[in-house]
Formats: sequence, C-alpha cells, structure tokens
Amino acid sequence: MTTIRQQVLEANVELSRRGLAPFTFGNASAFDRASGVVVIKPSGVSYTAMTERDLVAVDLDGRVVEGKRRPSSDLPTHLALYRAFDSIGGVVHAHSHYATVWAQASREIPCLGTTHADHFHGSVPVVAHLSDDEVAGDYEANTGHAIVRRFSELDHRNVPAVLLAGHGPFCWGATVTDALDTMTVLEEVARLAYDTVVLNAAARPIPDGLRDKHFFRKHGPGAYYGQPR
Amino acid sequence: MTTIRQQVLEANVELSRRGLAPFTFGNASAFDRASGVVVIKPSGVSYTAMTERDLVAVDLDGRVVEGKRRPSSDLPTHLALYRAFDSIGGVVHAHSHYATVWAQASREIPCLGTTHADHFHGSVPVVAHLSDDEVAGDYEANTGHAIVRRFSELDHRNVPAVLLAGHGPFCWGATVTDALDTMTVLEEVARLAYDTVVLNAAARPIPDGLRDKHFFRKHGPGAYYGQPR
Amino acid sequence: MTTIRQQVLEANVELSRRGLAPFTFGNASAFDRASGVVVIKPSGVSYTAMTERDLVAVDLDGRVVEGKRRPSSDLPTHLALYRAFDSIGGVVHAHSHYATVWAQASREIPCLGTTHADHFHGSVPVVAHLSDDEVAGDYEANTGHAIVRRFSELDHRNVPAVLLAGHGPFCWGATVTDALDTMTVLEEVARLAYDTVVLNAAARPIPDGLRDKHFFRKHGPGAYYGQPR
Amino acid sequence: MTTIRQQVLEANVELSRRGLAPFTFGNASAFDRASGVVVIKPSGVSYTAMTERDLVAVDLDGRVVEGKRRPSSDLPTHLALYRAFDSIGGVVHAHSHYATVWAQASREIPCLGTTHADHFHGSVPVVAHLSDDEVAGDYEANTGHAIVRRFSELDHRNVPAVLLAGHGPFCWGATVTDALDTMTVLEEVARLAYDTVVLNAAARPIPDGLRDKHFFRKHGPGAYYGQPR
Repeated sequence: MTTIRQQVLEANVELSRRGLAPFTFGNASAFDRASGVVVIKPSGVSYTAMTERDLVAVDLDGRVVEGKRRPSSDLPTHLALYRAFDSIGGVVHAHSHYATVWAQASREIPCLGTTHADHFHGSVPVVAHLSDDEVAGDYEANTGHAIVRRFSELDHRNVPAVLLAGHGPFCWGATVTDALDTMTVLEEVARLAYDTVVLNAAARPIPDGLRDKHFFRKHGPGAYYGQPR
Repeated sequence: MTTIRQQVLEANVELSRRGLAPFTFGNASAFDRASGVVVIKPSGVSYTAMTERDLVAVDLDGRVVEGKRRPSSDLPTHLALYRAFDSIGGVVHAHSHYATVWAQASREIPCLGTTHADHFHGSVPVVAHLSDDEVAGDYEANTGHAIVRRFSELDHRNVPAVLLAGHGPFCWGATVTDALDTMTVLEEVARLAYDTVVLNAAARPIPDGLRDKHFFRKHGPGAYYGQPR
Repeated sequence: MTTIRQQVLEANVELSRRGLAPFTFGNASAFDRASGVVVIKPSGVSYTAMTERDLVAVDLDGRVVEGKRRPSSDLPTHLALYRAFDSIGGVVHAHSHYATVWAQASREIPCLGTTHADHFHGSVPVVAHLSDDEVAGDYEANTGHAIVRRFSELDHRNVPAVLLAGHGPFCWGATVTDALDTMTVLEEVARLAYDTVVLNAAARPIPDGLRDKHFFRKHGPGAYYGQPR
Repeated sequence: MTTIRQQVLEANVELSRRGLAPFTFGNASAFDRASGVVVIKPSGVSYTAMTERDLVAVDLDGRVVEGKRRPSSDLPTHLALYRAFDSIGGVVHAHSHYATVWAQASREIPCLGTTHADHFHGSVPVVAHLSDDEVAGDYEANTGHAIVRRFSELDHRNVPAVLLAGHGPFCWGATVTDALDTMTVLEEVARLAYDTVVLNAAARPIPDGLRDKHFFRKHGPGAYYGQPR
C-alpha cells in the first residue's frame, strides 16, 4: 500500500505544480483492486503542507481503514467510478481552467484536431446539472451515478474524461499517474478547442478517418507510435 | 499593533507577488476595532521598497496617529467600508486583470460555476459611475459611500467583493489576509466567467440549489468541507 | 554621455526582460539636448549579446559621431520625434503583443478605465498606413513625419504613445526610462481594453470627469498622488 | 555528421524549452545533402531523456543507416519535403498552440502586420484534409505530398511554413536551427493574428508595398537590416 500512497501524494502535488488546481480545488485517488483499498486526499488541506500521513485509506463503501483525516468531500464520486469502470485504478478531479470553462459553458469538447484524437476517441462529454433533489440528497454520490449513466453508451477506456456542467472535469486511468497525465492533456486540448471555436465558430470536427488513424496509431493492438515494448 | 502592521505589509507585498497589482496599482489595509486604528499602505511607494515603517496608521476619521508618509489616496474608501460593514477587519483594492475587465465592461460577474459558488453567494455586483459632482467633490469618500449603498440589500459577508465601473475591484474580510485571499479567488473566478461567456454568450448561472449546496458546505453552521476545527 | 549610454543599454535589455520585445523587435534611444547627441541600439543585435560599445551615437541629422555599428533601421523615426517634440529625451519602439494587436486592427485604444486614465489623457491614437510613395521613399523618416502630423492637435505630453497601423507602438518621455515605463503600462492598458471590448463590444469610455480626475491627480500642478517631493 | 546530430538534438530540446511542443508532440530533423543522410528524433521519447544516441539516421528513402530507435512516425513527411524543396536542410513539426489553433480552424494566417511581413512574404497557407484513402494508405508520406502540391505555385523560400488542417504547422529552413527559429516566430505571428481578428473581424492584410518593404529589407540582395556580414 505504500506505493499507492506515494503515487497519490505525488499526483495531488503535481496537480498544483502543473497549474491544474488553483488553491485546493482538486483531488486525486488510487484504487488497489487486490486489497479493495482506495487512497485519497484529505479535505481542504493545502498541497504544500500535505504528507503521506494526511492521506486517507477507505474501502469501496467509504469506510475509513487507515488515517486520521476527513477524506475529500468528493470521495463518493470517486467510489462510484471505481465500482462502475472495472479497468481503472486512478481518478483525478480539478478545476483546471479551460476544462472548467467548457463545463461552465455546458458544452462538450468536440474533436477539432489530431492533438485531441491522439488521446480521446471523440468528444469529451458533459454531464448535465443534477436535479434539485439529487443535489439536496447525497450530492457527491449522485454526481458519480450521473457520470456512470452518461457513459452507458460510451467506452470509458477510449474517452477517459468527463465534464460536470457548471463545475469541472473528472479524469481516470489505469493508475492515478495516468489519470493525472490525461487531465494535463485535457487542459491543452480544451484550450486548443476554445481558441479554435472563438476564431471560427463554424469549425467542424476532423473527419472520422483521421480521428481513428490518430487514436489507433497510439492505442490498441495496431499501434505503431513510440518505441517497441 | 505590530501584528496588524506585519499583516498589512505582507498583504501589500503579496498583492504584487501574486500578479494582482501591476505597478503600484493596489492597496491593502487592516482595522483593529479594539484600538480603533486602521493601518494602510502609503501612496505611490513601490512594493519592493516598502517596509513596516512606511505604513501609515490613522483613526476612523482619517487622522494620522503614526507614520510619516502620506497614506494611500484610496484611504477614504477603506474608511467608509470599515464604518459600514461591522464584521470586517481588512480591505484590499487592486487593478487585478480580469476583475478589472468586468469592471471596465460595467458587467456584474454572474455565478456560472461551483468555483464561484464555493466563495461568493451569487453575482459579484457593480457600482455604477459616480455623478460628475461626486467625482469633483470628495471622490474617494464618495466611492466608499456608493459601495455601501450598493450593499443595502446584499449581505457583505456572503458576497465579500464589489466592482467599481470603469475602475476595478474592492474585497474585504475578517482580516486583511482573508481579503487578500478573496481577491486572489475573485481573479480566477472572473477569468473563468470571462472565458465562459466568450465561449457561450448564452451561458446561464448555475441553479440556485447547486449554488447554495456549494456555498453552504463551506460556510456557516452546516459546513462539512475541510478538517474539523 | 556615459549615463545616457547606460540608460539606453538598460532600456533595451529591459524591453526584452519585461516581455515587450520578442526576438530583436524593439529599440530604445535617448537624446541629450545639451550636446545634441542621440544614443540608439544597433540594428539586429540580440539583447543578450549587446554591450555599451555596440550602441551608436548620432547627431540629430543621423550622422554617426561614435560607434562602429550600423544604428537601428528605425533611427530616422526616432530623430523626427526628437526634432518635433521638444520636451522629450527618450523614445522606445517595440512589437509588444497587445499594443501591436490594436495597431494591426487599426483601432485606437479607447480610455475604458482608470488604469488608462492614470497614464494617458484620452485615447491612444493610430497613424494610418503611409501611402505607397511614402513607403517606397524614405520609409522610416516618413513614419516619423506621419506621427508628428497625427499629433498636430494632440498634446504629446498628455498622450505619450502612438500606434502605427499594421505595425506597433512608439512611446516617449522625458528620459528613455520614462519611455520604457510608459510602454510597460501601455501593454497592460492595451490588454485590459482588448479583453473589455471582447467581453462587451458596446463598452464606452469612462466619463470625462472621471478621466480628468485620475489623470490630473497624478500629473500637473494639482497632483496629490504619491509622496511629496 | 556529428554536427548535424548536435543541431537536431538541440532543436528538439529547444522546441520543448520554448513552449512550442507540449508533451512529446513535435519533431525536428536535419538533412546533409552531401552525404544524403537525414537525422531525426526517435518516436515517442521524452525531450528530457533524449540523447544524441537516441537520434536515428536514415537515407532519403527512409532506410535506417545508424541508430537503434524507431524514427519519428512523421519521418515520411520530412523526407517528402527534403526531396521536393531543394534549398532546405532542416524541418520542424510541432503542435505549437496558436499555429495549431489556425490549423484546427482551417484558416490560413493572413499577413496583418509587419511582424508577419518581416518573416513571411504573404499568408501562411493551409493544406486541406487528406481524402479517406490518403489517410488509410501511407498517411505520413501522403501528408508530405499534399504539402508539396500546396506549394506548386508558392515559393517555399519566401513562405517557409505551412498549416495542416486539423493538425498543426510544419516549418523548414536552410538548417534545422533556422527551421526552429521560424517556428518560434510563427507562433508569435499566429498569436498576433488570432487576437487581431478577434478584436476586428474585418481586419485587412497590410498593403502589398508595406509587406514587400519589410520582407525585402530583411531578405535578399537589397536587405539593409542588421549588421553588414
């Protein structure tokens, strides 16, 4: 479990270092499926003061198994994703600027270029506002359920990110480090798309063939980008 | 009084360090209600050269009680706020970029996302231009009076910031450090809102229920964000 | 003359350090009216390699009086300004980003806020494109003549900057250091105005009374900003 | 060949250092016409880890002549340019932000100012999307052929850059260092043009006479900018 704790601490600190999480607006967690333990950032602790001892370990039902801090208030959202997306081992949330702008505008991020297609196979979707009852009830868990519903017809492995309307992005991956890297790329992709539609409101997504070419030359069995492993 | 001086010096220097006050366009003050003394930045002194000895201490009527410098020309605005808002102990003014852009556009900053709702319960309001007579008269004091009038039907504790049309923002808080942090958040909130309405001119404020959920999970008796105190 | 050389070297290096002159797109000069000597940056020498010995000293007719380098190709523009504006001792030109954007858009920078009014008494004007003959002839000198004509009904002391359509800004002042500071402020004022009109295309200049209040509380005999001198 | 390897390594690292190539989205190569050898970046290796030994040397048909790594997947595009443009010795590709924005918007970059005209004699053109067959076939080589066709009526020496629709820019020059400098200037020119058309959608290219004056005072036999060589 030490390794996961180190990765979670590093991912939370990197969120801030990469400029993705102004103030303490962000949290990262990792899930070890073998032991059933999730490690997550404590609530409202500054990135510069945080140590491994501040991290909180919980089970998939959110019961604390180690740590004295209160976990991030977004924990129930993370848990819903770990339960529904069986290939993932890390989740990251932040108010990274351009991804949050698309979320506030309630617009999905269209696939306008190959930078996007190299990492996301199609648009990054938006989850619409929850109902008043969902907000008044178990808000953070209901947020997770809404994300899972939104992906009922999407492959979470090919589009490892989502925007919550009026809020910001969640990203995930095989590890918390992958989820962090996805959020880093998402921010640049969101900024490129933002400036593109401001320059040309009629900009269209790239052709499907070009999108597939770029995504699958980097992902899956036919990939030929990078060095042989 | 030493502590307040240190806080005021630190807040003024931080304004510049955080990129909120280009050149010397900014000033911070603190008010010690027990002794009735306000400590404020001197006028037109650069942030790098300023020491505690340059700060000026005045009473609520603006009479200098300690210090050899001329106080900030905006002092009468600060004093008007201390007299009217009885819960505050710090005031900060700056020409921080995006807050100033909204002020120059004479538009209030709508609550377009949870980053905003985490800190401000509703729009950040604008004070319209003063009349020619108010400008030609006691300009800086009249600016303070106009802010106070604008808040006659607003709770200054739940919305601790205002924009002066064609000028820039004022923020306040229990201490000058709180006021500085509010200005720091305001700048990011203003930038998020700016990019959001450029992307989607029809963007709407988040639902009232979501706004209340986010504001009150961090403020007031029902708060559950952060660590227990 | 040593002092002027040091100031000119420092101003040229500062142009780059402050992010106002990408690559070598910029030049600063100073004029010592007592000796009739202008010191200016050499043409196309990088800011990092430049030393005082690279600077070129010329008379008001552009004849080299000291130095082995070829002077900046914009020298004739500087000379025209020194001949026409009798209160100035420094001129700076650069392709600073936002000032250049307004120049490329052929739009004067309107006085949309007090940050502008604290430094420029009204709009920063644009000089329209020269005629084909003026460009094909003595281009750089004709540029200077066009600036001087544009100011025939403006006071160059109250508006110490101009934009050349499709090109970029020139600023001036009592010293080359003042001219550099004016260009630094101009860049922020241009950026504020840019973002303001993008946010609100109908944004109006601030009232004349507010503009005058801010400009004259900092400039001229009635000034009360800053410390007594 | 050592010198070329050093230049190629330096250019790839500089791409990242200058902020032109987020992540590993970029590649630079050089061509030594005497020996017929092209040296290029390996595929998917991070800029911080790369050494000269990671670079790959190939002939004009893409056969590896030295090195153990897989070359950049964009190699066939570079080779097509070296075969068609006989004056060039360096090629650089990146997803630099503003150039990529214009590419994603499928708009050529118009010559809106003298910063542009100092480096590019007219618009920077766009290559339209390849057909589905061209993408499904030898994608990277077909990309090169499309660039060459686009320049059938343009002089690649006077406009040393192109945008691929939905993708990003390629630049070239006499050496890989020149190509890198051109990409650096292109990014600022693209950003200036972006902000200009956002400010004024009706902004027009500068007059031909002014464009020619600026381009040819820096390039060709009549140049008079910089120091005599």
